[in-house]
Amino acid sequence: MIDDILRENADLTEKRINELLPECDKKYKSAVSAARYSLLNGGKRIRPVILLEFYRLCGGNGKGAVDFAAALEMIHTYSLIHDDLPCMDNDDFRRGKPSCHKAYGETTALLAGDLLLTNAFSVAAGVSDIPADRALKAISVLAKKAGISGMVGGQVIDLEIEKTGADIDTVKDMYLLKTGALLEAAAVIGCVLAGADEGKIAAAEKYASSVGLAFQIIDDILDSTGDEKLLGKPVGSDEKNSKVTYVSKYGVEKSRQIAAELTNEALTALNVFDGDKSRLTELTEYLLTRKF
Amino acid sequence: MIDDILRENADLTEKRINELLPECDKKYKSAVSAARYSLLNGGKRIRPVILLEFYRLCGGNGKGAVDFAAALEMIHTYSLIHDDLPCMDNDDFRRGKPSCHKAYGETTALLAGDLLLTNAFSVAAGVSDIPADRALKAISVLAKKAGISGMVGGQVIDLEIEKTGADIDTVKDMYLLKTGALLEAAAVIGCVLAGADEGKIAAAEKYASSVGLAFQIIDDILDSTGDEKLLGKPVGSDEKNSKVTYVSKYGVEKSRQIAAELTNEALTALNVFDGDKSRLTELTEYLLTRKF
Repeated sequence: MIDDILRENADLTEKRINELLPECDKKYKSAVSAARYSLLNGGKRIRPVILLEFYRLCGGNGKGAVDFAAALEMIHTYSLIHDDLPCMDNDDFRRGKPSCHKAYGETTALLAGDLLLTNAFSVAAGVSDIPADRALKAISVLAKKAGISGMVGGQVIDLEIEKTGADIDTVKDMYLLKTGALLEAAAVIGCVLAGADEGKIAAAEKYASSVGLAFQIIDDILDSTGDEKLLGKPVGSDEKNSKVTYVSKYGVEKSRQIAAELTNEALTALNVFDGDKSRLTELTEYLLTRKF
Repeated sequence: MIDDILRENADLTEKRINELLPECDKKYKSAVSAARYSLLNGGKRIRPVILLEFYRLCGGNGKGAVDFAAALEMIHTYSLIHDDLPCMDNDDFRRGKPSCHKAYGETTALLAGDLLLTNAFSVAAGVSDIPADRALKAISVLAKKAGISGMVGGQVIDLEIEKTGADIDTVKDMYLLKTGALLEAAAVIGCVLAGADEGKIAAAEKYASSVGLAFQIIDDILDSTGDEKLLGKPVGSDEKNSKVTYVSKYGVEKSRQIAAELTNEALTALNVFDGDKSRLTELTEYLLTRKF
């Protein structure tokens, strides 16, 4: 069933992305091609899945939520493109393919990221079947969670850590912002668009925050104990680079226990919702019991 | 009087920028400092001035328009920061001071630009005294004019021109998008926030588009005939770099004539507005008769 949940939502989102950002024949087409190259690279669309599942759980049934799912994926993709740039992580590959700047050049990649970030808000503000006050609130959430007190803030902390090292509290802050914030945006926006009350919105935020942190802790564990073949990348890099992680601080067993507690908190947060939570429960277990 | 018009609007905008993006003591403060460094560098705030003057001309008198003026200036500033980066124009100076990446490093500058762009939409979506449907429409305009079919599109065309050369039509497209689009956003958003009708919105867009193109043509003329002392930069760089400009295509006299026609078109576009147009008329003449 998890495969259906992922595929249904990803298909909806990708179809809409293709409508919202088609290939173009204008004089600026190079940046559009670069953006589409990174946007349509076969990701699992976890953020759109969370957004759309919370939207349905709260009784939403319109098409506008898919536009927000597409916008969120555009923002996620812009962050990956800029993160891979030479002045950032300088990564030549992303999911086994050349990263955007390796395929299109650094300048075009920078602008492709800028266009995706800007276009995300164009898509969100252009939504037609959502009441204006809800759309406005959802845009506010999207911008806050993507901005300096959210994902960009997490990027900045990550770079500070590389320069100066870190304690585990700073690493936790970084995980919560860099990964957690966009997952929170997904869950909260799903609720906001469906008109859910503040209690449900807060629970959705708590759910996503716990999932985001657990996800990163599991990353730390897999880097220490994972199967290189399943992961598709070498393990042990954190230890080699003397990175402060949950595993270096607490060891594998305690880290597993913290991740399990967070998973439990996430599932408990779902209790305030009345509808059928089986799809979100299954998604949560899929995300947090992964081996890769 | 033009000094009053500029100062009043710039003061309002800068005061609000300081409230919306204050210095912070969070772990990500470096990027906030870098963003403020570029945002508060004493620019003339032409876009906020245009936005607020059209807002008042259409009868607006609320405070929310200043938030959109601040948002627009954040987007303009992000574009300058990214434009100065080594992979773009590689400019070490901006208005006589080290450019953002020279002062804060390339990584922090990239993220400062990303945070300004994202924060602009957070500010716009958080506006409180504008009806939701108007705010949503204004955000849509802001994103479209800043994005691939606007300013970013102009940047992409500018880079294509550097690689492959250009005809004058492509140069015109580039001017209209790279400079014109954000001016159009300013004028249109002022009208939208005040609840102006579609006829006035279209006239405001035409005004700003003409002003933007004339502004760039005057840049071409000043590069050929200007006073280095007044300009604060060397003249003749376009000819030295064999750039296709209005002057290289049409000569100085014809270019002056085209700019004068565009100025006339801009002033004519103001005719559909009922109120006192003297401030916008003065601003237009100030922008388009400059010697520097």
